[in-house]
Amino acid sequence: MFSIFDSQMMLRAIELAERGIYTTAPNPNVGCVITQGDDIVGDGFHFRAGEPHAEVHALRAAGDSAQGATAYVTLEPCSHYGRTPPCADALIAAGVSRVVCAMVDPNPKVAGRGIQRLRDAGIQVDVGLMQAQAEALNPGFIKVMKTGLPFVQLKLAASIDGRTALANGQSKWITGPEARSDVQGFRAKAGAILSTSQTVMDDNPSLNVRWSQLPETVQSEYSQNNLRQPVRVILDTHGKVSADMALFTLAGDVLVLTANTNIRYDHENVEVMVTPTGSNGLDLCAALRLLASQGINHIWVEAGATLAGSLLDAELVDELIVYQAPKLMGSDSRALVNMTGLTSMNKVPTFEMTDVCQIGNDVRLRMQKQ
Amino acid sequence: MFSIFDSQMMLRAIELAERGIYTTAPNPNVGCVITQGDDIVGDGFHFRAGEPHAEVHALRAAGDSAQGATAYVTLEPCSHYGRTPPCADALIAAGVSRVVCAMVDPNPKVAGRGIQRLRDAGIQVDVGLMQAQAEALNPGFIKVMKTGLPFVQLKLAASIDGRTALANGQSKWITGPEARSDVQGFRAKAGAILSTSQTVMDDNPSLNVRWSQLPETVQSEYSQNNLRQPVRVILDTHGKVSADMALFTLAGDVLVLTANTNIRYDHENVEVMVTPTGSNGLDLCAALRLLASQGINHIWVEAGATLAGSLLDAELVDELIVYQAPKLMGSDSRALVNMTGLTSMNKVPTFEMTDVCQIGNDVRLRMQKQ
Repeated sequence: MFSIFDSQMMLRAIELAERGIYTTAPNPNVGCVITQGDDIVGDGFHFRAGEPHAEVHALRAAGDSAQGATAYVTLEPCSHYGRTPPCADALIAAGVSRVVCAMVDPNPKVAGRGIQRLRDAGIQVDVGLMQAQAEALNPGFIKVMKTGLPFVQLKLAASIDGRTALANGQSKWITGPEARSDVQGFRAKAGAILSTSQTVMDDNPSLNVRWSQLPETVQSEYSQNNLRQPVRVILDTHGKVSADMALFTLAGDVLVLTANTNIRYDHENVEVMVTPTGSNGLDLCAALRLLASQGINHIWVEAGATLAGSLLDAELVDELIVYQAPKLMGSDSRALVNMTGLTSMNKVPTFEMTDVCQIGNDVRLRMQKQ
Repeated sequence: MFSIFDSQMMLRAIELAERGIYTTAPNPNVGCVITQGDDIVGDGFHFRAGEPHAEVHALRAAGDSAQGATAYVTLEPCSHYGRTPPCADALIAAGVSRVVCAMVDPNPKVAGRGIQRLRDAGIQVDVGLMQAQAEALNPGFIKVMKTGLPFVQLKLAASIDGRTALANGQSKWITGPEARSDVQGFRAKAGAILSTSQTVMDDNPSLNVRWSQLPETVQSEYSQNNLRQPVRVILDTHGKVSADMALFTLAGDVLVLTANTNIRYDHENVEVMVTPTGSNGLDLCAALRLLASQGINHIWVEAGATLAGSLLDAELVDELIVYQAPKLMGSDSRALVNMTGLTSMNKVPTFEMTDVCQIGNDVRLRMQKQ
């Protein structure tokens, strides 16, 4: 069904889609390439919500050459009116004769409708080329569509013996500047950065994206003009965080999830949402569903050992990203995750190691839910 | 002083030297290449203590072609009678006209004498080509010669949160079979495997090299016929280990270091040495010096959190090799190293990250003393 040329074109569409990873949230990353014979006559990618979809960019570039062409798209073309008209209709109107999709729309309510619309118009549609790579473009979008829960990346940083601070609380700095810059790159891709009132009160962090601190490789593909600040979400069960903390004064929105119905902030960029409680503080699953309903697909968690332990206990972590420094802090120093009571090796949270690399004098390990 | 051809020949000599890494202990790994013009006329490496040195193998292969040739050697040729006659004399007798050495002999008492002997015979000697790579062939030999202490590799295995067993003691298995096979490869290179009475009594380990469990890459360059068992050294302050433990019954020597002067074992392969005590059990520095005096240059430590902590506290660890599994065992599980009382981040033991790789579903981190 697929030729080598098809694969080459889909790979190009995926590479184009990746150019939107810092800016499209909450929309998915999508790339499109249009060919006539062996020639590319148009290509494009989705850059930002509200702006044209990938197919529209590519069709505009192709112009009349789209007639009888093949369109390669990383995601099934949409069939509904959103902020822009349906892309399936645009492809039909342009007269393309074949559409190759890497994957169907993950939303079970709409999946296949765009493809059907194209087929009803007499267009040949082939689906599933490089599907795994295309799925990797949009882990958050896909997870929300399938489960109603966002994709959760839990960031941890520790010494080699898994410690986050000395017994006296000293922790600056465990990892080096390269690792901290790398963290900025992950923050920049996320829809939201999640933390807790405890972390805010302990460290008064900004939890924003500082363009000047992004890795150079990120800066080169993400201009400062396009900087998007992920929503900073603070879990504050009892409403303890005072309005003078640093994160409220910096650019970007803040969303405070709390069980305290009396909380108010005067800042224009701060919103408060009351969230159900569970057996121990806020109900994390309910909080994540609430965030998904707000258009937050992809969450980067930077908090302490307690939230880490609770998320792991509740099996809500999709990916662990652990930075480790080649240091040993000792058995009286602070634990990486507060989690107790495991009695069998068969039951310990176990992930799949997917990526290992050295960053400065530290190491970064990426691990995915099995 | 050195041409590209010189570098190519020294690289080949280093690659030859590496073929002895499983067998030469306690002797150093040495390789030699002899050239006439652009042609290699002989090469060789040291395979096993008591057998000919690298230079002798290469000279035998070269025969009369050694006359007027250049010899590339990874280590300064010896000038003394050991188990074999001095290599410097053999090179002189063969009539070579130039010798290129990667490094001088690290033993300050003999350093330079082999070179001087060659120069006195009218041979041109150039020293220092690819010295760092040549030094990496023999970290143990070099360290003992320079300091009287062996090179110490501390192996640790843990979950990502730095834990070695659940609160109830369960620990099988944290890492996977690929990581355990990799450990066998490190054991095979060491002069001794060091452990403690506590580990022996808790786990009854064999602490030997099982050829069938070596990684395939090691098996392909280390035939089963040549299998060498590193000495198993057990630190047993009070002389508690009973004679029926597994390690005494398996092939290979065992050396028990103890403060108890009444310990005796009937096994032919077991030797007992009384060792001074320090503030807490045996004096580790004295124990390591004793091992060096016994011809043990390179020690692979596999023990528990207590010995690990003591070695780190005493700054006796040259290289940390840490296997980590993508699991989280929780804050009530057992610590990787027993070490307490650190009060400043500036004083925590800090290493240099030198190698990071994935092994099976685990990661292996190598870190060297800074």
